Amino acid sequence: MKIAVLGTGDVGQMLANRLLTQGHAVRLGSRSTTNDKAQAWAAAASGDAGVATFADAAGWADLVILAVSGVHALSVVDAASAGLDGKVVVDLTNPLDFSKGFPPTLFVSNDDSLGEQIQRAVPGAKVVKTLNTLANPLMLNPALLSEPTDILLCGDDAGAKGTVVELLQSFGWASPIDLGDITNSRGLEAWLPLWVRLFGALGTPMFNLKLVRQ
Amino acid sequence: MKIAVLGTGDVGQMLANRLLTQGHAVRLGSRSTTNDKAQAWAAAASGDAGVATFADAAGWADLVILAVSGVHALSVVDAASAGLDGKVVVDLTNPLDFSKGFPPTLFVSNDDSLGEQIQRAVPGAKVVKTLNTLANPLMLNPALLSEPTDILLCGDDAGAKGTVVELLQSFGWASPIDLGDITNSRGLEAWLPLWVRLFGALGTPMFNLKLVRQ
Repeated sequence: MKIAVLGTGDVGQMLANRLLTQGHAVRLGSRSTTNDKAQAWAAAASGDAGVATFADAAGWADLVILAVSGVHALSVVDAASAGLDGKVVVDLTNPLDFSKGFPPTLFVSNDDSLGEQIQRAVPGAKVVKTLNTLANPLMLNPALLSEPTDILLCGDDAGAKGTVVELLQSFGWASPIDLGDITNSRGLEAWLPLWVRLFGALGTPMFNLKLVRQ
Repeated sequence: MKIAVLGTGDVGQMLANRLLTQGHAVRLGSRSTTNDKAQAWAAAASGDAGVATFADAAGWADLVILAVSGVHALSVVDAASAGLDGKVVVDLTNPLDFSKGFPPTLFVSNDDSLGEQIQRAVPGAKVVKTLNTLANPLMLNPALLSEPTDILLCGDDAGAKGTVVELLQSFGWASPIDLGDITNSRGLEAWLPLWVRLFGALGTPMFNLKLVRQ
């Protein structure tokens, strides 16, 4: 698959490298193709790897992964919007506001969510929210934990969710749980205020939730 | 222990009955001692059971359990306040607003919480928030689930939390996780927007989270 990863930070590069390893073609998107981190990544990457602007990377791709800080999510989506029509957009972001310190608050919550704001910003795209609920290293390697845990997703488009479920399964998530339409981002993002406190109490970000039933 | 259960609904009566079974003395608190549900409960209860006003029940008790709907929590705490000074108050409430239908929103969230509002309303009480994160039948019977899961708590007073941990252990929660001071109610209550959606996706409220580490 042709996958654009928007964002040149740790999460973006980690994802890009893993996707290359899995045989996908990857374009790392940034605001400018002269971005130092993107250039360094491309120079070191093996496989069908390249650098492009947000819009060019999105326009080239079959699937776009939004891997930037929540505070930049809408501006990056806006910059990429010319390439996003009809595309599956995997939204990993969280609306974390660290301006008042730790633990952060959310800059959108309760009766709206960043996932919904992104979908509204690019109504022609098929936004699927997932992987926002756990630490970066666990996104691609759930087996780092001592037993299988759960990953959740939501979005309006059933076909897009099917594509994302296959991608998640390729990362090792056996049975992703579909919460329904994109308004369920409110629930996925509400996990963060609890997650940051569990991080504090457990003394590690290397944990995830397992949903236990009867 | 002398335990006041404030609230005559399903959760209050279920808790009161279990506490009697465990040998505690219980007063079911309500706005009026002529409350039909409270009277019916007392007539059927065995053990040291009785009915009292919110304030009288709280004044009599060593430990007070707040088991009312979130929307009534502050008015009940206000009605009981004469009896709450110095008492351990176990807060089970969630600030759920169903006025716009299901799933509910929260009427306080993000940079404040109902747990903190309750603590501020009765600064002389020792509020401990817990058991708000799962369906009623599971509160007192975690073994209904297929494997051990986690229960969380928070509050400002270490001694009060120790008392509540012992109570939770008597219900079958082996290792409650202390998140810290009462501001962590923001995290515990933020679980609800995700919980209600998991309820929808899983088709049952009979589930709980297990925190899996490395």
